[in-house]
Amino acid sequence: MPAVTYELIKTDTKTKARRGRVTTAHGVIETPVFMPVGTAATVKAMRPEQVKELGAEIILSNTYHLYLRPGHEVVRAAGGLHKFMNWDKSILTDSGGFQVFSLDKMRKISEEGVEFRSHIDGSKHMISPEKSMEIQNALGSDIIMAFDECAPYPADKAYVEQSMKRTTRWLKRCKEYHTNTEQQSLFGIMQGGVYKDLRRQSAEEIVELDLPGYGVGGLSVGEPKEIMYEVLDDCLDYMPKDKPRYLMGVGSPDCLFEGVERGVDMFDCVLPTRIARHGMAMTSRGRVNIKNAAYEKEFTPLDPNCDCYTCRNYSKAYLRHLFKCDEILSSMLMTNHNLHFLVGTMKNIRRSLDKGRFIEYKKEFYDSYGRF
Amino acid sequence: MPAVTYELIKTDTKTKARRGRVTTAHGVIETPVFMPVGTAATVKAMRPEQVKELGAEIILSNTYHLYLRPGHEVVRAAGGLHKFMNWDKSILTDSGGFQVFSLDKMRKISEEGVEFRSHIDGSKHMISPEKSMEIQNALGSDIIMAFDECAPYPADKAYVEQSMKRTTRWLKRCKEYHTNTEQQSLFGIMQGGVYKDLRRQSAEEIVELDLPGYGVGGLSVGEPKEIMYEVLDDCLDYMPKDKPRYLMGVGSPDCLFEGVERGVDMFDCVLPTRIARHGMAMTSRGRVNIKNAAYEKEFTPLDPNCDCYTCRNYSKAYLRHLFKCDEILSSMLMTNHNLHFLVGTMKNIRRSLDKGRFIEYKKEFYDSYGRF
Repeated sequence: MPAVTYELIKTDTKTKARRGRVTTAHGVIETPVFMPVGTAATVKAMRPEQVKELGAEIILSNTYHLYLRPGHEVVRAAGGLHKFMNWDKSILTDSGGFQVFSLDKMRKISEEGVEFRSHIDGSKHMISPEKSMEIQNALGSDIIMAFDECAPYPADKAYVEQSMKRTTRWLKRCKEYHTNTEQQSLFGIMQGGVYKDLRRQSAEEIVELDLPGYGVGGLSVGEPKEIMYEVLDDCLDYMPKDKPRYLMGVGSPDCLFEGVERGVDMFDCVLPTRIARHGMAMTSRGRVNIKNAAYEKEFTPLDPNCDCYTCRNYSKAYLRHLFKCDEILSSMLMTNHNLHFLVGTMKNIRRSLDKGRFIEYKKEFYDSYGRF
Repeated sequence: MPAVTYELIKTDTKTKARRGRVTTAHGVIETPVFMPVGTAATVKAMRPEQVKELGAEIILSNTYHLYLRPGHEVVRAAGGLHKFMNWDKSILTDSGGFQVFSLDKMRKISEEGVEFRSHIDGSKHMISPEKSMEIQNALGSDIIMAFDECAPYPADKAYVEQSMKRTTRWLKRCKEYHTNTEQQSLFGIMQGGVYKDLRRQSAEEIVELDLPGYGVGGLSVGEPKEIMYEVLDDCLDYMPKDKPRYLMGVGSPDCLFEGVERGVDMFDCVLPTRIARHGMAMTSRGRVNIKNAAYEKEFTPLDPNCDCYTCRNYSKAYLRHLFKCDEILSSMLMTNHNLHFLVGTMKNIRRSLDKGRFIEYKKEFYDSYGRF
């Protein structure tokens, strides 16, 4: 038995949307799901049980960051990431691949792996497929991701093809190295940029390895959203129906709907937590910039349709005050609201799928949210 | 009936320590009490109900800061400070006096009041006794403090005397201006620096005004602790027994014990919350600097004798990691621990008074805590 199993409950009749269930040793995850990001073993500005109270069943954490700080051997000695950070539900870790490419523009890629400099102190490091597996094995996350190259956008086809093929070779090395498959499940990652034929080739190659799940990487890296949707329209058809599909690093409200519609099961994104710390709220009526002077004496909640802790207890005027004073409580309350909003939106999406009215719900949401 | 009443439950037989009870419209406060500081209408890095869970029955907030941001008229329009910040227990506000002296070294003092520049944008403002009352009336705190001058240390006697007398004249103006005495209680402030005769004179003058409580200001401003204790030894004898005595801005663990021993009922201090954000914990065995490299793989709680949320769920290794990554959760967890420690220590002090073993408890605490 793999550590992670997937059950497809139903497929939408009007779209490719799927209602499913992922099970790990740490619980059941109803899909489609949005995973809050806890980069450095903490969902920023949240106590873990607060994340749980929002309904989150899985979070994402980062191999790159935890390798540099506190070091994966520290996490191993703590008894693994769940125990270290006091989170007893599921955890997915990315492979570090994305970070070594996005955080060090001078990194050196070879067949062996990637040599990069730490964003913290400039020290030199190498992450290879084997190293990424070693780190993620130490972290003990339920789902571990293959070490891949996320090609930039734009990139010419020859480069993307060569990079995609290396990612597949790296995946084979990951699979070879990763042996405790009953504790942790390795997901492969499809690459291929915006080139549909490369995406198809990548999909076919990784599916052949018969892994418990698959990520779609290299999207939402600068290309127009329409192109991302087109690629998704096509490439998910080459993925097996009985395995979960994870669209990596994507999680704005519109992308959740568009991704689900095309057959994506899992999403993650720093957007809700990051913009929260910059005073930006996602609400049923679109974004609210809490810095706005108009809110000085606005004693109503962020979102009149929200029943989160923040909206039940605090006014926009108070939140604006906290933000302007650079108070930590501002990040705490705004983060709580934004995660509640996205996790809740995904809950509503699942309910709409259960009731066979996903497309109707999508329209209602878009009408209310306005411009994205 | 004044808004705030005090009941003296018992006086220690071996010391001047008092066990009492302050009652406001927002609840009962067992004394002696430590009041967490919520400068800008938030106890930094804490949700208000978390402050309540620690056992805090009253917090302090700042007139100076709230006058500048968000402005007292905003708080008035919100329905007062309790509602604005979602705190339904008691609140004490200081007068702004201390801040205009400590934050603007160029302030200009006249009989009228103090002209100062905002620490935020340099804009010019004037706070007079009447203005301080107007602001605090708008805030709606249960206990409001008279506008005083906190003379520096060292300062020559002639200056301190002149300043102390002006503080008394300002107190009379505060009392004159403040009329809603059934909603908010005005406390006078004793000054007089380290000069015992001036302290006595100040005490006699303010006690004559028959206010519901009194602050002791101008201590812990740089003088050696022994001098502060000597002054306290003497000056509290001139305060009425049936009114609460509040030692302003003092709250390190040793000062709590020494203050209680000399007859102080109320304390406040930013120390526990401020040092928490700098990675410093107060524990039953003294201070713990969480940055310490020795804690890298130390998977034990901050304080083995503590049952707070932080100590129940997180290791020193994790807290060190959070601090080093500049994670908000670090401030949240460390603040929670330090406030739990000080509020809890005060709870233990009250219990020891109830049982007639205050001096014994003090010795046990000092033996365990070590150097202060």
